[in-house]
Amino acid sequence: MVIDILTLFPEMFSPLEYSIIKRARDKDIIKINLYNIRDFTLDKHNRVDDYPYGGGSGMVMMADPIYRAMEHICRDKIKKPRTILMTPGGEKFNQGTAKELAKEEELIFICGHYEGIDERIMTLIDCQVSIGDYVITGGELAAMVVIDSVSRMVPGVLSSKESYEEESFFDGLLEYPQYTRPEIYRDMKVPEVLLSGHHENVNKWRRYQSLKKTYRLRPDLIDYGKLSDKDKKMLLDIENEEQDI
Amino acid sequence: MVIDILTLFPEMFSPLEYSIIKRARDKDIIKINLYNIRDFTLDKHNRVDDYPYGGGSGMVMMADPIYRAMEHICRDKIKKPRTILMTPGGEKFNQGTAKELAKEEELIFICGHYEGIDERIMTLIDCQVSIGDYVITGGELAAMVVIDSVSRMVPGVLSSKESYEEESFFDGLLEYPQYTRPEIYRDMKVPEVLLSGHHENVNKWRRYQSLKKTYRLRPDLIDYGKLSDKDKKMLLDIENEEQDI
Repeated sequence: MVIDILTLFPEMFSPLEYSIIKRARDKDIIKINLYNIRDFTLDKHNRVDDYPYGGGSGMVMMADPIYRAMEHICRDKIKKPRTILMTPGGEKFNQGTAKELAKEEELIFICGHYEGIDERIMTLIDCQVSIGDYVITGGELAAMVVIDSVSRMVPGVLSSKESYEEESFFDGLLEYPQYTRPEIYRDMKVPEVLLSGHHENVNKWRRYQSLKKTYRLRPDLIDYGKLSDKDKKMLLDIENEEQDI
Repeated sequence: MVIDILTLFPEMFSPLEYSIIKRARDKDIIKINLYNIRDFTLDKHNRVDDYPYGGGSGMVMMADPIYRAMEHICRDKIKKPRTILMTPGGEKFNQGTAKELAKEEELIFICGHYEGIDERIMTLIDCQVSIGDYVITGGELAAMVVIDSVSRMVPGVLSSKESYEEESFFDGLLEYPQYTRPEIYRDMKVPEVLLSGHHENVNKWRRYQSLKKTYRLRPDLIDYGKLSDKDKKMLLDIENEEQDI
């Protein structure tokens, strides 16, 4: 997958040089191209923003450098790649969007400032995406979050073991608690069942803990239609247990 | 405000050296301390993770280096600062949380790997926070998103003009479209009203556009109780307009 990023702060994208994305880039599964919007100005001062028509505080990013950057990226392409604008007013990003975007061969991300971009760039945009209901300074961190999440869904990026873990999130349940050595740490013991070597009991305990955590923290995630009869029985036990507290 | 970050990848936090956060750090309003969890291992190989009890793929971060890092950070403090774990199972972060966290004098962020952290660190945690319903590789990007959003709410970080803009998000409505020079770009004209110099009409147009955008894209954000009579009238017009399409 090729990912093109249009930004005024290309240096901010260093987090994409670590961990799983680094590995994917080293293996040429993901290629990331950074474009500084400022390089596409015709103005001798490399100006990228100007005052808003109609007044108001803040500066607005001009359309022209973005149009020119897009023309540069797309000049040899038969089809314009899907182009995403990161904006708080966009469609809420979730794991489903990540999976869908991971099918594309190429994606273009446009990162704006919170003050806004000239509305006339909208003819370039295929989808507007928001990572959540909060204000951040620019689209850069948001784009990295989306790129991280999407990259993980691209075949070959995660090892088969890692992918398996991913599946457990698609369940819609939160992760069960994890423990590692030592067995006793500051008087806190690892739950007995995890030391038993009895796989069926371990799995049962983990499923119960997943259901319990989700029931407590994110009941909205529980999709009853997807639960097995055993799950439903466990959930009844959890409900009773919680009422007793 | 002091922000302490516990991570295995301190180098990933370079985005906090730009734009508004940089300015806030230069002005000493925000101080960011990065701690590499690996520096707090007693093990000669600086090991920070180990296999999960009960089996399963992936590695689990050990409790001890995190406890030691926390002890180091808190050793001279009278009160332990509010400590946040970034995790997909946490409370959903939003602008309200940002405002609340901005009141703290000091915050500690613990960034985990997606494979998990030994559950016994939970005694250190005051709140678990998620930036959205998607999986990313580690807590680092998520922590930066929260830190960016919270920093903007700390008094003195934004100029008074910028703060004013922020207010408009608290309205719960999406931003109206912005335009800057030139008046005509690739045959696309700036709306006439924005060139009129008639402030009342400009404000009316902007309010209408904000309501329309929110109605179309994020109707869930509209809080009828907070709308003025004029707003309600506009919304009726918008509903009729949309039905005609």
